Amino acid sequence: MDPRLAEIRVRYADTDQMGVVYYANYLVWMEVGRTEYLRNIGMAYRDMESVDGIVLPVKEAHVDYKASARYDDIVIVKSSIEEFTRACMKIAYEITNKADGKLLATGYTVHPFVNREMKITRLPVAIYEKLKGAIGC
Amino acid sequence: MDPRLAEIRVRYADTDQMGVVYYANYLVWMEVGRTEYLRNIGMAYRDMESVDGIVLPVKEAHVDYKASARYDDIVIVKSSIEEFTRACMKIAYEITNKADGKLLATGYTVHPFVNREMKITRLPVAIYEKLKGAIGC
Amino acid sequence: MDPRLAEIRVRYADTDQMGVVYYANYLVWMEVGRTEYLRNIGMAYRDMESVDGIVLPVKEAHVDYKASARYDDIVIVKSSIEEFTRACMKIAYEITNKADGKLLATGYTVHPFVNREMKITRLPVAIYEKLKGAIGC
Amino acid sequence: MDPRLAEIRVRYADTDQMGVVYYANYLVWMEVGRTEYLRNIGMAYRDMESVDGIVLPVKEAHVDYKASARYDDIVIVKSSIEEFTRACMKIAYEITNKADGKLLATGYTVHPFVNREMKITRLPVAIYEKLKGAIGC
Repeated sequence: MDPRLAEIRVRYADTDQMGVVYYANYLVWMEVGRTEYLRNIGMAYRDMESVDGIVLPVKEAHVDYKASARYDDIVIVKSSIEEFTRACMKIAYEITNKADGKLLATGYTVHPFVNREMKITRLPVAIYEKLKGAIGC
Repeated sequence: MDPRLAEIRVRYADTDQMGVVYYANYLVWMEVGRTEYLRNIGMAYRDMESVDGIVLPVKEAHVDYKASARYDDIVIVKSSIEEFTRACMKIAYEITNKADGKLLATGYTVHPFVNREMKITRLPVAIYEKLKGAIGC
Repeated sequence: MDPRLAEIRVRYADTDQMGVVYYANYLVWMEVGRTEYLRNIGMAYRDMESVDGIVLPVKEAHVDYKASARYDDIVIVKSSIEEFTRACMKIAYEITNKADGKLLATGYTVHPFVNREMKITRLPVAIYEKLKGAIGC
Repeated sequence: MDPRLAEIRVRYADTDQMGVVYYANYLVWMEVGRTEYLRNIGMAYRDMESVDGIVLPVKEAHVDYKASARYDDIVIVKSSIEEFTRACMKIAYEITNKADGKLLATGYTVHPFVNREMKITRLPVAIYEKLKGAIGC
C-alpha cells in the first residue's frame, strides 16, 4: 500500500448531534495519518521522541471541510510532506471517504523540531538524511 | 464582563504525554468561545438550531499555536466576528492564559448557514438584523 | 480471526500528562470493540440504528484498570456478550496489550434496547434470533 | 457554595449522533468534579502532582446512567469521598441537571496513591491529616 495512506473507521464517539463527525476530530485523524506515514517510511514517531529526544509540537494547523464524514464510514488520510528542513516540517493531508472516494477535507500542519525541554532544535543530520531519502525530496 | 470573553479551566483530559494541551482541543475551546459569545449577545446557539432550524457547520478552521497551555491553567477565549453576511460568518479567536495574559493561540473558523437538512440557506432577516446590531458592525 | 477481537492503535490524543492513556478513553475502545464484534457476527450497528430503528444507549459502564496503555501500543479489545434478552444486552470486555498479551483492563457495559424516540422497546424477534444464533447462546 | 459541587456546561463536542452526551464524557466530568472538590478543600491536585509528587491514577471507574444530558445544559457534579486511607481514595459522584435537579448519573472512581514513577506509595502524613480534616471524616 502507498506509505502515505492510513485508514480510519469513524467511531460513535467522533460524531456530534449534527449526525456527522465533530470538526476537531479531523485534527486527531491528521495525527494518526502522519504517525502512520512516518512509521511506513521507517521513522516511528514513538522512537523519535523516546530514543532521539525529538518532539514535534504543532505550530500551525488548518482544515478545509468539504463534505461530512459519518459514523462507521472508513476514511483514508493521505499525508504528504510539503516542506522539510532540519528546523521544521510541513505536512499536507487529504481525507477521503473510502467507499466512494469523495473528498471530505484537506489541511496541513506545521511542526518545528524541539527537544525534550521544548527548546527549538535541529534534526540530527543522520535522521534528516534518512527521512529525506525516504520522502524522496 | 466583555461579552466576547469565555473562561475555560484546562482539564487533565485535555493534556497529552508532552505535558501540554493536545492541539485538537483548541478547536473545542473555540467552539466554547463562540457559543458563549453568541449567548452573551442574546443569540443562544441551542435555540438557533432547535427553534430557528439554523445550523452552523464549520467550513474552515485555522489555529496558530504560540505557547503551551497546561493542566489546571485558566485560559480566556476572546471571540470576534470578522465577517458576517446572511450566508456565512467568520469568527476570529485569541486564546490567552488568564494568570499572566500570555498569548497561547490565535485562529479562526468560517461557518456557512445551513438548514436542518444541511442545505445552504440564508439567515432570516430578523435574526440577521438582531445579530448585526449586537455585534455592532 | 476471532470475531470478538478488535485491534486499536493508541493515538497521541489518547494520552495524558501522566504519559499513559487517559482513563475515559477505555470506554471509547469498548465502543469500538462492541461495534466490531456486532459487525463480525453480521449485525452492523449502523444498520440496526438506521434501518431497524434500534438504538443501544448505555445504562451502566464499569472499568477495572490493571496496567497502563501507552502511545503507539496496539491494544486488543475482546468483547463477549454476557447477557442477552429481547430487552437488553450486557457485554464484557478484556483489553490486552498485543505485544506481550498483558491484561490492561476488564470491564462491561449494559445496554437496553430503545427506539429512535429513546423509548424502551423489545428487540424484533428476527434480529433477536439471528444474534442469538451468531453469539451461540 | 458547597465545596463538593462543580458546574459544567455541556459542549457540542460532548454530544453524539444520538443527540445526547456520549457516555465516556461522564468520566471526564467526574475528573473535573474531583479536581474542583480537592481544590475547594485546599488541596489543588496540580500541586499534589508537581510539588508533592503524588499521582492519583484510576484503578476502577463505574457509571450508572439515569437520564440524558443535552447540549448547552448545565450539569452539576457532586463529589463525595467515600473511603480515604493513606493508600487510596474512593470518590462517589452524583451528576444532576442544574435546571430541574434531575439525576443524570451516579458513579464512583477508586484511586491508589502512587509516586512519579507510578509505584504504589503512602500519602505523606501531613497531607493525609490535612485532607482528613477538610473532608470531615
